[in-house]
Amino acid sequence: MLMRYKAVRKFTRRLCRPLALEDYVVQSMADVSPTKWHLAHTSWFYERFILQEFVPGYEPVNEAYYFLFNSYYNGAGPQHCRPSRGLISRPTVEQVYDYRRSINRRMGELLLNADDATLDQIAPRLTLGLHHEQQHQELLLTDIKHVFSSSPLLPAYHAFDDEPAGNGPGDVDEPGWVGFDAGVYEVGVPADDESFHFDNETPRHKRYVAAFELADRPVTNGDYLAFIEDGGYRRAELWLSLGWSTLQADDWQMPLYWFRDGAQGGAWMQFTLAGAKPLVLDEPVCHVSYFEADAYARWAGARLPDEAEWELACRDQPMQGNFADSAAGVGRIHPLPLSVAIDGEVGRVRRCFGDVWEWTRSSYSAYPGYRPWPGTLGEYNGKFMCNQYVLRGGSCGSSQSHVRATYRNFFAPEARWQFTGLRLARDA
Amino acid sequence: MLMRYKAVRKFTRRLCRPLALEDYVVQSMADVSPTKWHLAHTSWFYERFILQEFVPGYEPVNEAYYFLFNSYYNGAGPQHCRPSRGLISRPTVEQVYDYRRSINRRMGELLLNADDATLDQIAPRLTLGLHHEQQHQELLLTDIKHVFSSSPLLPAYHAFDDEPAGNGPGDVDEPGWVGFDAGVYEVGVPADDESFHFDNETPRHKRYVAAFELADRPVTNGDYLAFIEDGGYRRAELWLSLGWSTLQADDWQMPLYWFRDGAQGGAWMQFTLAGAKPLVLDEPVCHVSYFEADAYARWAGARLPDEAEWELACRDQPMQGNFADSAAGVGRIHPLPLSVAIDGEVGRVRRCFGDVWEWTRSSYSAYPGYRPWPGTLGEYNGKFMCNQYVLRGGSCGSSQSHVRATYRNFFAPEARWQFTGLRLARDA
Amino acid sequence: MLMRYKAVRKFTRRLCRPLALEDYVVQSMADVSPTKWHLAHTSWFYERFILQEFVPGYEPVNEAYYFLFNSYYNGAGPQHCRPSRGLISRPTVEQVYDYRRSINRRMGELLLNADDATLDQIAPRLTLGLHHEQQHQELLLTDIKHVFSSSPLLPAYHAFDDEPAGNGPGDVDEPGWVGFDAGVYEVGVPADDESFHFDNETPRHKRYVAAFELADRPVTNGDYLAFIEDGGYRRAELWLSLGWSTLQADDWQMPLYWFRDGAQGGAWMQFTLAGAKPLVLDEPVCHVSYFEADAYARWAGARLPDEAEWELACRDQPMQGNFADSAAGVGRIHPLPLSVAIDGEVGRVRRCFGDVWEWTRSSYSAYPGYRPWPGTLGEYNGKFMCNQYVLRGGSCGSSQSHVRATYRNFFAPEARWQFTGLRLARDA
Amino acid sequence: MLMRYKAVRKFTRRLCRPLALEDYVVQSMADVSPTKWHLAHTSWFYERFILQEFVPGYEPVNEAYYFLFNSYYNGAGPQHCRPSRGLISRPTVEQVYDYRRSINRRMGELLLNADDATLDQIAPRLTLGLHHEQQHQELLLTDIKHVFSSSPLLPAYHAFDDEPAGNGPGDVDEPGWVGFDAGVYEVGVPADDESFHFDNETPRHKRYVAAFELADRPVTNGDYLAFIEDGGYRRAELWLSLGWSTLQADDWQMPLYWFRDGAQGGAWMQFTLAGAKPLVLDEPVCHVSYFEADAYARWAGARLPDEAEWELACRDQPMQGNFADSAAGVGRIHPLPLSVAIDGEVGRVRRCFGDVWEWTRSSYSAYPGYRPWPGTLGEYNGKFMCNQYVLRGGSCGSSQSHVRATYRNFFAPEARWQFTGLRLARDA
Repeated sequence: MLMRYKAVRKFTRRLCRPLALEDYVVQSMADVSPTKWHLAHTSWFYERFILQEFVPGYEPVNEAYYFLFNSYYNGAGPQHCRPSRGLISRPTVEQVYDYRRSINRRMGELLLNADDATLDQIAPRLTLGLHHEQQHQELLLTDIKHVFSSSPLLPAYHAFDDEPAGNGPGDVDEPGWVGFDAGVYEVGVPADDESFHFDNETPRHKRYVAAFELADRPVTNGDYLAFIEDGGYRRAELWLSLGWSTLQADDWQMPLYWFRDGAQGGAWMQFTLAGAKPLVLDEPVCHVSYFEADAYARWAGARLPDEAEWELACRDQPMQGNFADSAAGVGRIHPLPLSVAIDGEVGRVRRCFGDVWEWTRSSYSAYPGYRPWPGTLGEYNGKFMCNQYVLRGGSCGSSQSHVRATYRNFFAPEARWQFTGLRLARDA
Repeated sequence: MLMRYKAVRKFTRRLCRPLALEDYVVQSMADVSPTKWHLAHTSWFYERFILQEFVPGYEPVNEAYYFLFNSYYNGAGPQHCRPSRGLISRPTVEQVYDYRRSINRRMGELLLNADDATLDQIAPRLTLGLHHEQQHQELLLTDIKHVFSSSPLLPAYHAFDDEPAGNGPGDVDEPGWVGFDAGVYEVGVPADDESFHFDNETPRHKRYVAAFELADRPVTNGDYLAFIEDGGYRRAELWLSLGWSTLQADDWQMPLYWFRDGAQGGAWMQFTLAGAKPLVLDEPVCHVSYFEADAYARWAGARLPDEAEWELACRDQPMQGNFADSAAGVGRIHPLPLSVAIDGEVGRVRRCFGDVWEWTRSSYSAYPGYRPWPGTLGEYNGKFMCNQYVLRGGSCGSSQSHVRATYRNFFAPEARWQFTGLRLARDA
Repeated sequence: MLMRYKAVRKFTRRLCRPLALEDYVVQSMADVSPTKWHLAHTSWFYERFILQEFVPGYEPVNEAYYFLFNSYYNGAGPQHCRPSRGLISRPTVEQVYDYRRSINRRMGELLLNADDATLDQIAPRLTLGLHHEQQHQELLLTDIKHVFSSSPLLPAYHAFDDEPAGNGPGDVDEPGWVGFDAGVYEVGVPADDESFHFDNETPRHKRYVAAFELADRPVTNGDYLAFIEDGGYRRAELWLSLGWSTLQADDWQMPLYWFRDGAQGGAWMQFTLAGAKPLVLDEPVCHVSYFEADAYARWAGARLPDEAEWELACRDQPMQGNFADSAAGVGRIHPLPLSVAIDGEVGRVRRCFGDVWEWTRSSYSAYPGYRPWPGTLGEYNGKFMCNQYVLRGGSCGSSQSHVRATYRNFFAPEARWQFTGLRLARDA
Repeated sequence: MLMRYKAVRKFTRRLCRPLALEDYVVQSMADVSPTKWHLAHTSWFYERFILQEFVPGYEPVNEAYYFLFNSYYNGAGPQHCRPSRGLISRPTVEQVYDYRRSINRRMGELLLNADDATLDQIAPRLTLGLHHEQQHQELLLTDIKHVFSSSPLLPAYHAFDDEPAGNGPGDVDEPGWVGFDAGVYEVGVPADDESFHFDNETPRHKRYVAAFELADRPVTNGDYLAFIEDGGYRRAELWLSLGWSTLQADDWQMPLYWFRDGAQGGAWMQFTLAGAKPLVLDEPVCHVSYFEADAYARWAGARLPDEAEWELACRDQPMQGNFADSAAGVGRIHPLPLSVAIDGEVGRVRRCFGDVWEWTRSSYSAYPGYRPWPGTLGEYNGKFMCNQYVLRGGSCGSSQSHVRATYRNFFAPEARWQFTGLRLARDA
C-alpha cells in the first residue's frame, strides 16, 4: 500500500519536472487551478480524510491550509474562493513541497505503525486518495496547457520524441460501424467487484438498449476540418440553442488551441504541450466541447452514443491506449495519430481508451438506486449531477491504472480545455 | 378547425381582460416576456408558418414584426434581442391587437377558401399553432405574475372567488406510496396516435424501469415549511453543488413569492395572482426550482421520480384537475388545497394533472430514435435538449385540452417563476 | 405663485400629449426614467418637501409612493432601485395622473389658505419645485427620445412643422473667434441676486482667466462629419484614454442617433423626435459625449472652453434661442440650423443659449466657499460633484425661463442621450 | 548620466530582494501589475523610446516583449490586455532579469559610444525613463502589498527595524491651522526651470486663490478612528453620491488593510509591509480613497485643499520626509508616527512630503496653456485627464529624488491601494 502511495506521489512530482517555478502559480481561468494548488490539495486530501481521522490528537501542518486547500467539501469546512486560487503567491512552491513532504512522512509513519484493523479502515480511503491524485495529475496537465496557451511565447511543456508528420485529407478511411443488438443489459459496477471504483459507477443496473451502431474509431482532425470547411461554425441549425449562444458569445470558430498560421488562409496549427505544431489530420480531434461534438455528429448524420451504449461496446476491449504514463515513455502527452499502432491494440472499437475522453449524450445523473458514499466524501461525486455530460474512456492525460470501462467522467457542455473528443453512434 | 382556432384565440383575449394597458408592456426579467409580445408572437406564428407558406404572394402585415416577434427560429430570420423585449413601447397594445385582428381575418379567409388538399396540409400546422398559443397563455400568466410581484403595490390579477382558509400544520396526512413493478415498459406516444403531440414525445420506446413507489399526492406548503424550519436552506449537504451556489448568490431562503409579514417571525405569506395571501398549508407547494425540489426530496429521504416512472404511474389517471380553463370557472389560477375536492378526482395518484408542474429528475434529452420535425419547426423543441429538466402533468396555468400524460415540459434547474412543484418517489 | 405653479404643471402635461400610454412605462436604459416616473417624482417633490412640511398632520396620498418616487434623497428615506423603474406596471399612468391631481389640489389648498408668513417660507421651495419640474421636463424629452430609438419602428414624438433641407458641405463658414482679455473676473451668482438659482452657482467668486478666444457659433453636423471622415473615431491619439476605451467597448462610430441609410455608404441620417431624418449639415451637432466633444476639439486644433470662460463670454448675450417652450411654437424640439434666424438673435456669440448644451472642460466641482442648501435639499446638487463635467447654455429641450448664464448643468463624460453639443475655444 | 541610470536600476533590484520568485508573478486585481511586469516594462521603456530611436538598425531583444510590456502607448503599437498580466507564467522571472541585463548592456554601450550631440538628445529621455522607473518602484511596492494582503498567511515584505508602540487616543493634539492670504499666485513649473518635471506641471500660470487655512499636519489613524466610531461609514449625508454607492457595493467599513482582530470588538489592526500590526494612532492615515478623504473632511467641518492651495503652502517647505529610499535606511516603508521626529523637519506644514500622498479636491485637468509632449510620449500624462483626482507630496513608497512640490500624482477617486492619505483645509 505504501509502495503504491509512493509511486503515485512520485508520478505527480515527475509531471512537474518540466515546469519553471512561475508556472506553478498562475490560474489562467476560473476552471484552471495553479499547479501548486494541485500539489497542495492532493496532500490536503490525505491529511483531512486520513491523518486527521486516524492519528489521535492530530495537529495540522498549517491551520490555514485547511481553508486554502479544501476544494469543495462543505463538510470539511469553508474554502478559499476558487477563482482566486491564482491571486496568492504564498505559500510558495517550496513551502508547498515542504507540505507534501510533511504529509508523506506522516502518512509513512501512520501506515508503518497502524495495526491491521486500522489499516483495513485506512485502505479504501488511501486508494481513493490515490485515484483522487491521479485525477489531479490529469487536471495539472490540462491546466498547465491552458496556462501556457495564455502566453504569446507559446512555451512547450516537453518536446515530442516522435514527431508524426501532417497527413493530407483522405488519409483516414471513413469509420466502420460496429453493430449491437437490442436488449436489456446490465451496466455499472457489480456489487461484488472489489477493485476500486467511484460511487457514481454503482449500482449495477439494468437498461433497455435499442439496437445501435458505434464507429470503430474516434473522429479525427481531418474529419472535423471538413465540418469547419462546410460552414459548421456558421450554421445555427446544426447546434443546440445553448451551444449556438456560447459560440456567438465566445466567438468560437474552431476547437480550442487550433489557429491558423498568419493571416487568412494560413496553415492549420494547434497549440500542444510541445508548443505550436502543424495540425495532424489523422489524430483524434481534441479540445472540443459537448456543443461542438454534438454539432459535428448532427452534421455527420449521426449522433453521440449514450453512456450505456459506450460501456456495452467498449467493456470487452483491452485496456490499451495512449495514456499519460505510457505516453511518458514515448515522450508525448497528446492524442496519437490513428496511423501509429499501439502495442496490443486489438478489438472492434479502436482507441476507445486513452487519447481523448469521448463525449456521450448522457447527462450526468444518478444510476437507479445510487447512494453517495457516507459522510463528507459523499460530496465527491453526487452533488455535481446537474448540467454536466458524461465522458468515457480516459485520455492521453490519464494514467492507465486509473481508467475503467465503467468510469464516468463529467464536464459542463461548454468545457473545452480537457482532452475531449468524440466517437459517432447511430441507430441501427 | 376555424372554431377551435377562434376558441383558443378568444381565451387568450379573455386572459388579458384583467390587465391594464401598462401591464402589457413590462418585462420584469430576461425570462419574462411582455404580454403584448406574447399576443404578437402567437399571431406571428400563424403568419410565418401558415399564411406565408400557403397564401401565394403573401405580404406581411408589417415587415418589422417578422424581426420583432420571432422568438428563436433561426430558420425564420434574425430576432430582436430577447432581454430587450420590454425596452420598446411601440407597437402599442392597440397596434398589437390590430395585428391579431389582421391575422385572424387572413386566417379566416385562408381556411374558408382553401381546397381540401391544402387544408390537409394546413391542419397539422394550425393545430401546432393552437397548442403553441396555449403554451403562451400559461407563460402570459406566469409572466404577469412576475411583473406584478415587482411592484411594491403587489397588485392582483383577479380575485379568488373561493378563499380557502389557512390550515394548521398536520392537517394533511403523510403521503401514501403507490408501488410499481420492475419491467420493460413502453413510454412516449405510439406511432399510430393521431392526436396532437410534440416531436419530443416520440418515438414510443422501451425502457427498463426498476420497481419504485410514487407518492399519492404532491408535496404541500405544510410539508415544505417543515423543511425550511429544519434549516433546509442552510444545510449544504442537502443540495446539489450548483443549487447551493445559486442559493447563496441569490440569497434564497424560501420559494419564490413567499415572504413573511412584518419583521422576523411574522406570518408566512405568499404573493398570488389575487395579491398577497396567507400561506395555505395543504396547497401543493409552488414556485420551487429543480434545485429546491431535489433538496427537499433528499431531506425527506426520498427522491424525484424520473420521467418514465411518472408517465407509467399517471397515464391511466383521468385527465381531471385544477387547470386555467377550469380554474377560470372557479375563479382562481392557483394551486388548490388538497382538502378541496375536484370533480371526477379518482385514482391512486391524486392531483398529478393540473395544480403544479412536477419536477422529474430527468434531464431533458432526446428519446432513442428521436427525429425533430423537418425544417424550421424542428427548432421548436430539439435544440433545447441541454441543461434543462423535465416537468410533467400541467398546472393551474395550463389549459386542460393542452395537457397529456406524455407531455414533456422543461425548464432550467434554477427557474422558479413557473407553477412548479414536486411529488416524491422512492426505490421499492 | 399659484399661477406659475399651474403653468409649469400644465406644460408637463402638454409635453406628454403626443404619447401613447405604453410610452409612459418603458425605461430603455438605467439613465432613462419612464415618463410616468417623471410625472410622479415631480409631484412627490412638492409632497415631500412642501406638503409634508407645511401641512400639519399631513397624510401621504400613498405611503408606497414615498419609496417609489424618491429619486436619490437619502435624507427622505429609502428609494426604489433606479434601474428597476421600468420593471413595474403599477401604479398605472392613470393612477399617476390621479396622484398629480391630488397633489395639485392639496397644493392649491395650501397656497390659498396659508398665512403670509408661511407663504414666505413656502415660496423658495415652491420655486425650487418648479425649476425641478422644468429639469424633468427636459429629461422627459431626452428619455422618451431614447425609448423611441429602441424600437425598430423609429416612431415620431411629433412632426416638425418646418422642415429645413439638408445642406451640402461648406454651407457654413468657418467659425469666427471672439477674443477676451486676461484678468481677474467674478463668476457665479452675486449674493444679492434674488432671482432663482441653484446652490451650486454660488458664491460669486474671483477667478484669474488668461486671455482666450471663443468660437462665435457651435460646432455643426457638417463640421463633425469632417472629423468622422478624417478617421476621428479610429485615431487613438485624438482621445482621452477613458474615451478611447469607451469608444471601443461600445463600438462608437458616430454620435448617438446618427446612422447611415442602407449598407456601407448610404446617406447620413439621424433619429429625431420627428423620426428618422436626413442629417442637416448646418445644425449644431447634438448627442455627443464629453469624450467626443474633447476629441473633436483636439482634432480641430482647439479645445473646449472652461466654464468660467463660457460664462464671461455669454453672460451679456440676450437670452434668446431655440428652447422647448419657444420650440413648441415652431413645432420642433431639435437644434435649429444656423441658417435659420432666431428672433432677437444678436451679439458676438451666436446660439449660446438653447439648441444644445455645450460641454466645457470643467469638472463639476464646488465653487470656493460653496455651501450646499441645509437639510435634505442639500443633496440636490452637492453630492454629485465627482466624475461629471459642466455644460452650459440650455438646449432645445429646456424652457427659456429655466436657463441662466450662470446655470451649471452636469453629466458623466460618457453620457450622450442629452441634447449635448459643443463650441470651440482656444488660447489667445 | 550612466551612474544615475545604474543607481536607479539598482534600487529597483534592491526593492525586489525580499521577494520570493512566486511573488513576482501574481496580479491580485486589475489595477495591480505583477512585479515581473514592472521589471520588464521599465526596461521596455528604455528600449522603445531610446534604443530603438538612437541605435541604427536596432533589433529588439524579443519581438513579443514589444507587445507584452507596452503599457498603454497606442503610438507604440498594440498591448497585452492589462487585466491579464498575471495570467502568464512566461517569460519567467529569470528571463525578465535577462531582459533587464540586455537592456542595461545596450544602454551602457549607447551612452558610452554616442557623440555629444546624440547624448544631448538622449538625455531628456533618459531622465524621463529614470523618473518613470521611480514611479514603478512605488507601484511595485503598493502592488506587492496588495498581493500579500490576498493570502490568508499575510506574509511580510520586510521587518520593521523600529517598531513604534500603539498610542492611546488623544496622543496627538488637534491640528493647528496655517493661514494664507488671498491673491493672484503663480503655480506650476516656470518655463526656465531646467530640472526634471512632467509636462502636466506646466506651464506656470496665474491663479486667483481666496484666503484659506491648511492643517499643519496630516490626518492620523486616531483622527480617522473617531470618524469611524461616529458612524462615518453609515451616514450617507457625509458622502459624495458615487462614494456612497461604492461604499455600499464594496461594503467599505474602514480603510483598506484595516481589520479587527477576532470577532466584533477586537483590537484595531492594519496589514502593513511588515505583516499584520496593531494600529498606531498617531500615524498618518493611509489607504483611504478620495471618497473617504472627502467624507472625513466633511465630517470634520473642513474640506480638502485644492492643488493650488497645497502647492502654495508647501513649496517652501524643505524636501524632508519619510521616503522609500530614506525609509530603506530606517527599515520601514510605512507612514511614520507624528511622534517620531524626522531629521531636518522644520516649517509650518509638517510632513507634507513623504508618508502619504495627500488627496486634493482638484480634478486632474490640463493647466491653462498645457501642451502634451510631442509624439508618443505625449500619451504619458495628458490622456488621463478625466475622472481622476490630484494627490500631492509623495509617500513612504516614493524616492526623495523623485518628488517635487509641483508634482501632480493622480488616481481614480475609488482607488485605495496606494499610500494615500489627506490633510484638511478650510476657508479663512
